[in-house]
Amino acid sequence: MTASRGAALEEQRLARAYLLRAAEPPAPALVAFVAEHGPVAAAELVRRAEAPDAVVQETSARRELALGERDLAEAAGQGARLVIPEDDEWPAWPLLSLDVATGRGAGGVAAPIALWVRGGARLDQAANEAVAIVGARAATAYGEHTAAELAYTLAGGDVTVFSGAAYGIDGAAHRGVLAAGGVTAALLGCGLDAGYPAGHVGLLNRIAEHGLVVSEYPPGTPPARHRFLVRNRLIAALTAGTVVVEAGLRSGARNTAATAGTLGKVVMAVPGPVGSAMSVGCHQLIRDADATLVASASDVLDTVGRLGAAGAAPASARRRTDGLGPQALRVHEALDRRHGKSAEGIATESGVPLARVRALLPALELDGLSERCDTGWRGTRLPANPVARRVGGGGPNGDGGSAPGVGGGSVPAEPRPP
Amino acid sequence: MTASRGAALEEQRLARAYLLRAAEPPAPALVAFVAEHGPVAAAELVRRAEAPDAVVQETSARRELALGERDLAEAAGQGARLVIPEDDEWPAWPLLSLDVATGRGAGGVAAPIALWVRGGARLDQAANEAVAIVGARAATAYGEHTAAELAYTLAGGDVTVFSGAAYGIDGAAHRGVLAAGGVTAALLGCGLDAGYPAGHVGLLNRIAEHGLVVSEYPPGTPPARHRFLVRNRLIAALTAGTVVVEAGLRSGARNTAATAGTLGKVVMAVPGPVGSAMSVGCHQLIRDADATLVASASDVLDTVGRLGAAGAAPASARRRTDGLGPQALRVHEALDRRHGKSAEGIATESGVPLARVRALLPALELDGLSERCDTGWRGTRLPANPVARRVGGGGPNGDGGSAPGVGGGSVPAEPRPP
Repeated sequence: MTASRGAALEEQRLARAYLLRAAEPPAPALVAFVAEHGPVAAAELVRRAEAPDAVVQETSARRELALGERDLAEAAGQGARLVIPEDDEWPAWPLLSLDVATGRGAGGVAAPIALWVRGGARLDQAANEAVAIVGARAATAYGEHTAAELAYTLAGGDVTVFSGAAYGIDGAAHRGVLAAGGVTAALLGCGLDAGYPAGHVGLLNRIAEHGLVVSEYPPGTPPARHRFLVRNRLIAALTAGTVVVEAGLRSGARNTAATAGTLGKVVMAVPGPVGSAMSVGCHQLIRDADATLVASASDVLDTVGRLGAAGAAPASARRRTDGLGPQALRVHEALDRRHGKSAEGIATESGVPLARVRALLPALELDGLSERCDTGWRGTRLPANPVARRVGGGGPNGDGGSAPGVGGGSVPAEPRPP
Repeated sequence: MTASRGAALEEQRLARAYLLRAAEPPAPALVAFVAEHGPVAAAELVRRAEAPDAVVQETSARRELALGERDLAEAAGQGARLVIPEDDEWPAWPLLSLDVATGRGAGGVAAPIALWVRGGARLDQAANEAVAIVGARAATAYGEHTAAELAYTLAGGDVTVFSGAAYGIDGAAHRGVLAAGGVTAALLGCGLDAGYPAGHVGLLNRIAEHGLVVSEYPPGTPPARHRFLVRNRLIAALTAGTVVVEAGLRSGARNTAATAGTLGKVVMAVPGPVGSAMSVGCHQLIRDADATLVASASDVLDTVGRLGAAGAAPASARRRTDGLGPQALRVHEALDRRHGKSAEGIATESGVPLARVRALLPALELDGLSERCDTGWRGTRLPANPVARRVGGGGPNGDGGSAPGVGGGSVPAEPRPP
């Protein structure tokens, strides 16, 4: 990294540290404003209240708190860092699901401005192949045992486990990963230094040794109920799928599951004895077909797809999508890895015109991001070998010859209108 | 009943008693032959080996055993009777699912020629609103408790429970019904007098007091593995849906569930602790979407539909379908009670031409056997009030005016081609 690139990055980091404190997340207007102007200019405009009304509103209570520098110093003193979208470590691909859902009109799922991180793992790598294990605080012994065993086995298969930091299922999941020597990530609804919940301070320290403790709340932010709900979107977004191990009828874990569904992630639930109040929520999720039943780690892997799961694509695929234009991204997001969809269905879902969808699908295929199947098109299940795909390409439904911009082997940033 | 009608009925009963022993069920060719010629003529032709090859083959080993009279006398001595399709007590509507599935090419699900019955209940009334509860013989305490509680609650809601007579889940289900003072029915894979399984002889006697013990095997027939599988189709057919409470990976209960699916009945499974080998089969059924998760009796009722469930329509609906021609029956069978289907989809599934489907659907609606919904047409969930339906008929999708034979308020046996 050059010195000037390094200086620019630190300027952006300082701006984002300021912005992260200026608005209570999620702050969709601010996120869009930062995307438009860049963090440094956006921070300056917010500070001067020269932003659009919606942004001014989101930042009205705190825009005069210029604590970015202090927050960064305090975090550094606590062994934490601020990871920003401009960093290589930023999990851009998984978090894209938040932008897409927000763009589709889903509320409360705006992307984070940046993330405070403590721990030895890299956030992008941790999210690369990750599953969330969540559930009730008032878990039963059965639930805790099941969560720990599931986490232990997944960690043994090099899957990162994401969860909250609550007592019950969350804690059991982290302990299972730690027992396997794997990487686990705890997402907090308070500052990294809040020491909450008190009984898990030691556990969080152990997680940070090889894993990650993550929060979008600046140092000193106390826990609050709404922050845990807001935090849930990050657990859902950073993983390929969410497993609910135990949940009562009204459980925060079901909120995470619903958010995961909104983000197009896989939702799974573990069954339990029918008499158990802590399994009622799981059974309802399964019964209503909002979640797939999983009874083992191999069920989980089978359900999310072993590799390249939605929202946790391998690094190679991630690089390949870097050049995608907004329409190609929307088409890609509309694909399902398990079920084929017609071009018409994809057009309806993505809002991209049918003719464009028909052109983009074969182009995405060439980049290993989609594939043809009996029932239409689906997302790729495994990271594709581009060479093999090109040789084998063009099935019975093949209309690849009419695809624009196919020659380069890379999906064009945005194909020109015909 | 006139004397001559009574005499004819007993002649038919004797003929069917003979035929029931002449072929090992299921005997699809014999069933079709009897439907064509009536039981008396069919029995005579079978006896003389003057039937089509397939029938002769099915009856070759036993057609010379003229034991009908002896079987009837023996059964009467044991307090049992032979219920035949010519009787009012015959559960014609539920068993129709066997004919329909056989007509569609499903193997091993031919209707029974008649049924040996012991017990105080009427078979048609018992099957009117009935649910099957089946599961592993090597059940756990959890499974037996769950089966008994489910059966107890269903029986309290006047639902008849059908099951086998095995140890484990079957026995627990019957005991649950008996504790509630309800009606339970045990379907055997051997003669009613086989005393099998030995430890359940007392239980079967208690079941027969207010409920039913049923078999298509003549007195003296010993139990055999294949007979239990063949028997499973009757459990599935005589009920609106089958609940699997516990099942290992290879379980007879899963065979009943698969048969229920083949017959278009509702398949349900009870979840359990993920570590339990006896819940593996249930979890797999749910995970593969072959069964709906049920955790309580109200889940079961909700899933099968409280009344008028497929295969267990109320007596009024049963009368209404008596006049249906084969095409109307196929269209009716293709309807789903939970999800609307397009006329095109129903045509594809039933094999009935689209124009005919379009004509039959409104006609079925007038008889309360179908209804319009947002997504097309579905089977009725509740027994319809014909008067109210006629007043409210003709929704936004209404094309009832073009339906032939609507005026009479009854679906024509077979509408003439336009």
